[in-house]
Order: sequence, then structure tokens, then C-alpha cells
Amino acid sequence: MKLKGFQKLTLADQALQSWFNALQIGAPKATVVFLQDALGRVLAEDVIAQQDLPRFDKSAVDGYALKSADSVGASQFKPRVFQLTENQEVNVKQTKQVWTGNPIPKGADAVVMLENTKKHEGKLEVWSQLAPGENVSKKGEDTKKGDVVAKARTRLNPYHIGLAAALGYSQLKVSEKPKIGVLATGNELVEVGTQLSGNLIYDSNKIMLSAMCRELGAETTDYGIAKDNVDEIANKIQMALKAQDAVITTGGTSVGGLDLVPDAVNKLGEPGVIVHGVALRPAMPTAVAMLEGKPVLILSGNPVAAIIGFEVFGRPMICRLLGMSKTEPRPMLKATLTRRVAGALGRKTYVRVRVTLRGSEFYAEPVSAKGSGSISTMTLSNGFVVIPENREGVSEGETVIVHMFGSLGLEAEADV
Amino acid sequence: MKLKGFQKLTLADQALQSWFNALQIGAPKATVVFLQDALGRVLAEDVIAQQDLPRFDKSAVDGYALKSADSVGASQFKPRVFQLTENQEVNVKQTKQVWTGNPIPKGADAVVMLENTKKHEGKLEVWSQLAPGENVSKKGEDTKKGDVVAKARTRLNPYHIGLAAALGYSQLKVSEKPKIGVLATGNELVEVGTQLSGNLIYDSNKIMLSAMCRELGAETTDYGIAKDNVDEIANKIQMALKAQDAVITTGGTSVGGLDLVPDAVNKLGEPGVIVHGVALRPAMPTAVAMLEGKPVLILSGNPVAAIIGFEVFGRPMICRLLGMSKTEPRPMLKATLTRRVAGALGRKTYVRVRVTLRGSEFYAEPVSAKGSGSISTMTLSNGFVVIPENREGVSEGETVIVHMFGSLGLEAEADV
Repeated sequence: MKLKGFQKLTLADQALQSWFNALQIGAPKATVVFLQDALGRVLAEDVIAQQDLPRFDKSAVDGYALKSADSVGASQFKPRVFQLTENQEVNVKQTKQVWTGNPIPKGADAVVMLENTKKHEGKLEVWSQLAPGENVSKKGEDTKKGDVVAKARTRLNPYHIGLAAALGYSQLKVSEKPKIGVLATGNELVEVGTQLSGNLIYDSNKIMLSAMCRELGAETTDYGIAKDNVDEIANKIQMALKAQDAVITTGGTSVGGLDLVPDAVNKLGEPGVIVHGVALRPAMPTAVAMLEGKPVLILSGNPVAAIIGFEVFGRPMICRLLGMSKTEPRPMLKATLTRRVAGALGRKTYVRVRVTLRGSEFYAEPVSAKGSGSISTMTLSNGFVVIPENREGVSEGETVIVHMFGSLGLEAEADV
Repeated sequence: MKLKGFQKLTLADQALQSWFNALQIGAPKATVVFLQDALGRVLAEDVIAQQDLPRFDKSAVDGYALKSADSVGASQFKPRVFQLTENQEVNVKQTKQVWTGNPIPKGADAVVMLENTKKHEGKLEVWSQLAPGENVSKKGEDTKKGDVVAKARTRLNPYHIGLAAALGYSQLKVSEKPKIGVLATGNELVEVGTQLSGNLIYDSNKIMLSAMCRELGAETTDYGIAKDNVDEIANKIQMALKAQDAVITTGGTSVGGLDLVPDAVNKLGEPGVIVHGVALRPAMPTAVAMLEGKPVLILSGNPVAAIIGFEVFGRPMICRLLGMSKTEPRPMLKATLTRRVAGALGRKTYVRVRVTLRGSEFYAEPVSAKGSGSISTMTLSNGFVVIPENREGVSEGETVIVHMFGSLGLEAEADV
């Protein structure tokens, strides 16, 4: 048989590079959101401190503000005695009560902690010697006016939001959510919630890929299931391109066999398919394309191959659409491989593993008892080990870097 | 001075245990959501396979189905020749084209990959010998009808959703989102978006803690800022308890000083405060309480102490309210500490670090140049190292487990 389509596989990194070179994705549109809605969004501009933080010297503890010079030599056995004052200013041998966060009264330069004092006959005994500035948070100690406190392209976690609030921001400028159209193809597919018959199967990839997009901060639109027909596929892709920033398809691409989706994409315009056939295991039939300047990602119909294809091309694509200059890494860790796994010379291999913390050691158990196309291998595992193109495999006992996508397994005796 | 409130600190683990023992949080209410809305939700019941997956023997590759016995001895130099058929059944020396996912025709027991065949004068040359079952995904290979494919209390990732869809689920039963009321206290606080004057500061903890709750899958309601007045605080907590599953406060608790929130809570009923004063650094003034059978978490007004108090008590609380039997771990990794950090004997210390991957090694750099109360230490770091109560510190070069809350720093030469 004459193999249609690609005969030669492109290295994954090269394929991604060629795709991005063609796409030249620019800065995304920005939108303003309230802090309350900013969690997980990606900053469109630097956040700059509009003021010093703290705005004034303040007490870092509950205690008494005083002149440190007056405390020289103080100890529990040789307390120094201070006059209590309620005034705005502290004079020699005077002290004023302050709670954490209170401004330091004029004249004072240190705060003695409550537990190092004792009230006695209306005066205050101080039991410890203080250095100038002790227990004082200096004006601007946290951030100085004009500091960049969070850089553009940062994904906002709760602490960024807290810092922005402390600086008085009530809104932040973030990237608009990329809009992704998701399309499944295949005569054998039906939507979940309908009745199955004969050799039909439920479409699961579309709903799963949509969740993968949303997890990264994109919005998705479901373009349904196209039959195995180039025109129908082309029509749906064209419709999606009109409204969306990118299109992801699943099914209808193979290793030299039926290539309905690549054919449909090529029919729609230039440049169409940029790379078809990637030196990946699984996910070899993945194709990357561009139409109307927008990315089109053509994934396998095999669920695990679709997942790996998304991992290698879809994640970077969404990160770029969000304005990031690099792909956001997944959480990673190093673990000891409990069993040898095979790679494939010349192809980058994604091995699913289940990582567990036992005592204070991480172990990665390959999940491969079942067929490589089984989606249950993804729910039984929590991370990927990536075997590079130049390795035949990784041996039992070797230390590997795992890219985590699921919750870590903790053994009863985990030492955390 | 007579220290009011706690004199003795309770170990963090003990405090959590005492709190949970008092609370006896039951199973959460369940709700049914469409698969499209299930990402990040927590399963309220086991998901059971309603069918075998695959439902029938299917091809794992693009190729030709045949009887493996007919391929014995085949090689590129000694091809076996097969008759092509379009029938539903494959007889001796016959073969039928199949694409990945197609059912295996009756009579066939293996599939030869396209690339190991050649069409020649209307017949098919097969170049490789096949084992019985080769390139066939057997019925039930992925999951068998009746299998538990995802356990109750699992937080759903895109792959769980994909598997549920493949099995025909269009909806799943998940825990209702816990409803958390968040209240700030302090005369010095104003809401973001308003003008500052004098010694006032912006309330940042409430908005940050709300984001921390929502990140874990809770819903939050903002109960505003209460003045430093026991009655006002008590009124707001009472109002929150009526509508919410739990209440979190920030401010108005100290180490033997002003304890307005614990006082307000104790005024509202039994048992009120269960533990006040925890052997933690920071977050010593944290208190945990119960009113009307609901958890009340009383956090410091210091932002970093509030963050650590939430980490130690708030995360476990929300996980329990979601129905989980254990606290969901953050992503973890082991890294080499680049600089000695001090602990505090008798107290569990949370050190903020910035973890970077250089080459294939993880390094954790302590972030402590600034004041320990500076919220910017949280945005400059991406993980916690927890120093146990019995350690005076951790030395430079020691390997530590880091609990990650931010994106990993990748150096240019990172080897991932």
C-alpha cells in the first residue's frame, strides 16, 4: 500500500517550533477584572506598587514602643522601668502600648514584646535589651513605591491577589481567555447521554479536551461530531475559525491511512497543515496547522494519543495565546522508577506513572498493565515520565523527573 | 503584665486533631453536575463502569485484520499473500482493512499494521508474523462492567471526565461546594477601592483568604470588616453562621494581647474556642473554634501568619467539608537547600523558598531577606519547607521536601 500523508516523522520540538514560527502569536487582548475574579488569570501588564508597603513604620509584634537606648542592659534580673504614656510621642524612659500593625509612635525606635514585660505599680518593667529597629516593620520594607510586584504573564495565585489588595488595587488587567473550538470526527461516535447500538461508541475526547483547555484558563465551544467526510469536517472547522482563537480536532488523522482532517484543513487554505506525523509515542498521527493565522491542532482519536498530543502541542499553544513566553511547567518531582520502561529510539515517549511518597522517598510505578490506548491508564496514574528520543528505555531504580498531573499518592507512613 | 488568653501553645497536629474531634464533620450534601461542569469537583460516590470498555474487540492500529495463523513465517523477504475482502467475516488467507477503533471482523484475531503490508496486484502482501491478539484491544481490556473507575472523594481531573464520558456518563454526583464566610476585623482596615488616610491600611487578607478557599473548590461570602468591638464581631460571625458551612476570620487574635475574636466566639456559645495559641511559626495566634457544630477558624491579621494558619487548618477543613478523609497534598518535590534556615525548637516552622530546576537538580532558595510578615515573601517564593518541632534548623545542602504553591522556576538549561 502506498502510504498517504507523512512518511517521515518530525521531532516533537521541531514540530512545535515550526508551528509557532508560522503562527507568530501576538499579545492577547487584555481585559480588566475585579480582584475577586482574578484567581488563575494571567496578568496582561506588570503590577507596580503605587505606595510603600508598609506605608509607615509599624509594630511587628504586640508590645510596647520605646527608645531602644533606654533599654540597654535590661534583663529579667535587671529590669528597666518605663513610664506608660498615651501620647502620640514617646519621650526618654517613656513607653506606649502597641498592637501588631500599629504605627510606631514618634520618638520610639523599637518595640519590646509583651512577654518580655511586666506591669508593676502603674509602670512597665522591661526585661530585655532592644536593638534599634527591633520588632519594627520599616516603611517600604515589604515593597517600595514603584516596585514591580508581579510581572506581566504571571498566573495569579491567592498571594498575588493579597499583595495587590494590600497595595490598594481593586482591579487588575489580565489576558482575555483564549477561545478554543473543539470538534470530534468519526462515524462511530455518538454524544454522551444518548443510547448506544451496534459498533457505536461514546465521544469522550471532545469533553475531555475541553476540560483540559479550561483547566489552563481557556474558554471552549463544542462544535459537535463531524462524520468521516472531508466537506463536513471542513465546514465545521471553518465555522469554528470564524468565532474562535484556535481549533482542536480529534480523530480522522492517522499514520499514513485515513487523513480526513488534514485533508479538510488543507482544502480550507494556506498554509494548512505544517507538520503531520510527529516522532512521539503515543500521538504519532498528531498534525499542527494554521488557517487564517490561527492555530489548528489535529489530534488522534485514540484518547491517550489525544492527551499526549495536547500535552506536547495544546498546552504550549494555550500558554502562548495567554501571552506567556514559555509553556507553564506542570508540577515536577524526582522519583525512583520501580520497574524498567521501554522507550523508542528516535521517538519521544510519554510513560504514565503513579508516584507515591513512602517515608521521605518518591517512587514512580509505571502504569502499563493495560493497553497503551486505555484511558484508564490516565486515571490510574498521576504523572508522565518523558523518555527522550536518544534513550532505549529507563532502568528500574533510575531517578526520573516526573511531570505531575494528578494528586500525589501518600502512603500511611509518608514523612511530610 | 498578666497575659490573657493562652499561656501554653498547642502542637499544630494536636490542635487540628482536637478541632476535628469536636467538629465530627459528616458527609457533605451531594449534587449532580453535567460532565462539562465537573472539572475540579469532588466525587460524592464511586463511578462504576456501566459497560465493558471497549465494548467489543477493536483494532488498536490502522491496518488489516486476519487470522494470525496465516501469517506464520511472514517477513519482508518472505511475504504472505492475502485475499482482500469487504465481508463481515474473514476466512483463511483473507484480510479486511480496519482503522484504529474499528471492530475486529469475525474470524480474525490479529491486525497487521499498514506499514508492514503492501498492496500488490489486488492482493495484500503481509511482511510480518503476528501473534494471536496482536494489535487488538480486547473487549473489557480498559475497564470491565462493574469496575469502580473513580472512587468517591476523588477530585475530578480531565482524564476522569474523559473516562466517565467513554462509559456513557453525562452527569456525575459531586459534593456541594462548601460555603465559607470570610470576615476581617480591625479599626485600621478599609476596603480596596476606597481612599486611604492617616494610619489606615487596605484589607488584603479577606480577599486573599477568599481566593484560597475558592482555589480548593469552596464558595465564599464576604462579611466585610468589623471594628475592634466584641459585639460587632460577634454579630457578624452569628450572621455568617446562619448561612455558611464555616467561618474564617482574620485579625483580632494575638499572643496574649487583644483577643477580640476569640472573646466574641466564646460569647456566642459552646464550645466556642477549642484551641487558641498554636506552636507554629508564624501563625502562633491562630485559634480554632466550633459554634452550632460548624468550624470557625480564627486567623491572625498578619498576612503571612494568616496564610500559614490557613495552610495548617483551613485546607484540611475545606477538604473535610468536601468529604475527603485526608487533606489533599500540595504538589511536592525534594530539593537541595541553598542556605541554612533556622527553625524554632518546640514550634513547627514554615519557611518560604523559591524552587528552581537547574539542569536536572532542584534547588530551594529561602526567601527571607525581608520581614517575615511581608506578603511579598509569598509572591517571591513558590513553596514551603516545613521544619518540624524537634529541629533547630536545616543546613545548607540538606535535601528537603518542598510543598509547592507556585509555578516552578525553570533555568534556561533545565533538563526536563
